Amino acid sequence: MDSRFRAHLVNSCTGYKSANLIATKSENGIENVAVFSSITHLGSHPPLIGFVLRPTTVPRNTYENLKQSGKFTINHIQENMIEDAHHTSAKYPKDVSEFDNTSLTPVYRDKFQAPFVAESTIQIACSYVNEYDIKENGCIFIIGAIESIYLLDDFINEDGFVQLDKAASVSINGLDGYASVSLINRFKYARPNDE
Amino acid sequence: MDSRFRAHLVNSCTGYKSANLIATKSENGIENVAVFSSITHLGSHPPLIGFVLRPTTVPRNTYENLKQSGKFTINHIQENMIEDAHHTSAKYPKDVSEFDNTSLTPVYRDKFQAPFVAESTIQIACSYVNEYDIKENGCIFIIGAIESIYLLDDFINEDGFVQLDKAASVSINGLDGYASVSLINRFKYARPNDE
Repeated sequence: MDSRFRAHLVNSCTGYKSANLIATKSENGIENVAVFSSITHLGSHPPLIGFVLRPTTVPRNTYENLKQSGKFTINHIQENMIEDAHHTSAKYPKDVSEFDNTSLTPVYRDKFQAPFVAESTIQIACSYVNEYDIKENGCIFIIGAIESIYLLDDFINEDGFVQLDKAASVSINGLDGYASVSLINRFKYARPNDE
Repeated sequence: MDSRFRAHLVNSCTGYKSANLIATKSENGIENVAVFSSITHLGSHPPLIGFVLRPTTVPRNTYENLKQSGKFTINHIQENMIEDAHHTSAKYPKDVSEFDNTSLTPVYRDKFQAPFVAESTIQIACSYVNEYDIKENGCIFIIGAIESIYLLDDFINEDGFVQLDKAASVSINGLDGYASVSLINRFKYARPNDE
């Protein structure tokens, strides 16, 4: 099987992925932003997230910055910014900010060290917690703690559920596909004696 | 913040998740199937996937079975099966199969030990590779290797990209929301000098 064919096939066969931009700032003050499709919920007590860093691909600047500063932000990608979001995966030199080469805008909040993406409708401030080396293929599984979440009250249902289609957040299919999503239904907590 | 409110908020704020059923078979021949929203691509050479097992929640039968047998299947959830898929998260006793309490049907392929979900339009045979204990909250990050993928040729583009909306696969929002998805666009590999 051809190497690119296999990369597309395996990358898309596990299902839809989250579509986020991780933003950081280097110790020299260079801002960095890069698209990540592997961010996932890890637990709510304490509020933890996890994501995978590939060994050989672009966002090593992200890794260096979040290790140095201990801080990063997660910013949802919406439909009107998918082209710019995807373009952050281009391999820019370390001293070039992706913010200067896209229409994405850095914004600072509450003296948090890392920039947020102003255009994102859901923005999350995180601190670096730990990392696990995945020896099978050289990936790193990064653990982060959520410090603050910035979003409109309108996106949150009474029980805390964030209805992501109200925020116009997209999902990623494979390496390069961006998809729009709409909620079908929610179900109550399942018990064995339910009909 | 109320504990359930926080669970919903944190679980939904990281974005859309994959919607899959993992199916296994115990050494006593009891089939097990459970919904998982954390399965993600980990690498394509070798083809690896990862997912998170919560310490205290339902799918411990899944863990015991895949450790014993070394085999499991990943089966995409489609819109017409979301209610049954969600119901697999109910806490059944170990000797009760979720297949007997939903309309989901087990099917065997090519002498693979674990059952597939017949209704799923994308089915993946996997073997257990390794696990990493996430000491921050007691989760386990499981690494699996893809052995075979069963899907219609129609779902696969010429370059290997699996267009998931052709398979009618859904995405999960938070703990209990199921969402339909449609591809907006794909973008070419990004380079710094792109317009």
